[in-house]
Amino acid sequence: MSDERKVQEVFARYVRATDRRDGKTQGALFTDEAVVSIKIKAGPDSYEPFGEPLIGGAGVEYAVTNLMSPHPEGGSSHHTTFDHLIDVDGDDAHLNAQFVVYKVQALTRPVDGWPTGTIGPQATIRPVESGYYDTDLRRIDGEWKIVRHTVLMDMPIAIPGT
Amino acid sequence: MSDERKVQEVFARYVRATDRRDGKTQGALFTDEAVVSIKIKAGPDSYEPFGEPLIGGAGVEYAVTNLMSPHPEGGSSHHTTFDHLIDVDGDDAHLNAQFVVYKVQALTRPVDGWPTGTIGPQATIRPVESGYYDTDLRRIDGEWKIVRHTVLMDMPIAIPGT
Amino acid sequence: MSDERKVQEVFARYVRATDRRDGKTQGALFTDEAVVSIKIKAGPDSYEPFGEPLIGGAGVEYAVTNLMSPHPEGGSSHHTTFDHLIDVDGDDAHLNAQFVVYKVQALTRPVDGWPTGTIGPQATIRPVESGYYDTDLRRIDGEWKIVRHTVLMDMPIAIPGT
Repeated sequence: MSDERKVQEVFARYVRATDRRDGKTQGALFTDEAVVSIKIKAGPDSYEPFGEPLIGGAGVEYAVTNLMSPHPEGGSSHHTTFDHLIDVDGDDAHLNAQFVVYKVQALTRPVDGWPTGTIGPQATIRPVESGYYDTDLRRIDGEWKIVRHTVLMDMPIAIPGT
Repeated sequence: MSDERKVQEVFARYVRATDRRDGKTQGALFTDEAVVSIKIKAGPDSYEPFGEPLIGGAGVEYAVTNLMSPHPEGGSSHHTTFDHLIDVDGDDAHLNAQFVVYKVQALTRPVDGWPTGTIGPQATIRPVESGYYDTDLRRIDGEWKIVRHTVLMDMPIAIPGT
Repeated sequence: MSDERKVQEVFARYVRATDRRDGKTQGALFTDEAVVSIKIKAGPDSYEPFGEPLIGGAGVEYAVTNLMSPHPEGGSSHHTTFDHLIDVDGDDAHLNAQFVVYKVQALTRPVDGWPTGTIGPQATIRPVESGYYDTDLRRIDGEWKIVRHTVLMDMPIAIPGT
């Protein structure tokens, strides 16, 4: 497998782990010293930091496990990435990808069946988040690990009480 | 071309064939004994079977040709796949991909022209279906064919009268 | 890096340049004689030309710089591509990709803070455009450049006053 595909697969695992709120699997994609930060778009070419960076796989594991809201019953999400730019230079790599996050809410079949005329997949699917991932990786003992990960959000994030 | 890309292109052909309701092209991507099944998400990590599996390229061709509803006038769809995990082991391969299906309905230009202020592309585009494809392929006479294909749906599917 | 990835990265740069309205970067992806045209879906397998083709990198640069509407404050877009079919034959390549364009509008934090109960990313994200890119590229002095680019739109485009 090419190094570019290996790097891309790190992100294919990242999005699945996030969507399953699997902090352990997600944390294992990062080095112990990795710096993970969120930035919010503040203008055409500028971003502002949001909160403090997470540090290392342990920080990521804690955040995914404890700070991401669980899916409601019938709920799913898909973090999806597109149009990757990947530069591999020896044991270092850089990735930039577009991302969109979808929130999925399955409808529940009424006890007396679907209403007349209802047909096909029953859910609401909404894109709720978008931006870019900008990330450095390093090959350590043959495995690509994330050493810096910046989530460049297109929109502000509301935190209750702020 | 790498084997990983060849496997990915099988799915690039799959989504185009589905969206064009081209059962013949779609069926040709499967072996005669391929098992194609749909499962519906029943909980965070569990799925329930939906209906009976389709068997082989002939079963897929029949279903795409006869059971998928045709697009209305001005209608299109896009089955899209993301964040592929692909493992190739000799003449066997496994693929897992996220998918989202979009339903597109073009608007019709009114006979006396678009209303004042109307500008740009005129359509509604809605994500209507999502989940994962989980698939085994085998290289036969140099070509990758699908031998097992499971569509893991995030949501239930309504069938009229059930 | 494989030629297929190099071709794919031309499009990864194309979508970022479009979304940033960076005509200079976008124009540089095309040869001087490139022919860029838009076609509108007119039926299940037919398209009609829309307007006159743009010619060359200079034509593309002019159009991106002068004819694409700028993003409003808090606005972004994402041109995203999926399920690429890429054929490389020596110094010639052909790409076909699905595309969806998202329009993003960030919400503005009210001066006295987000309303009670508001949580998470604050924006509307809408898919507004979809179709296929169908494109020929040529390797010139080691770099892949676009020589023909056709945007196959699923929907009509409204132009004020027509």
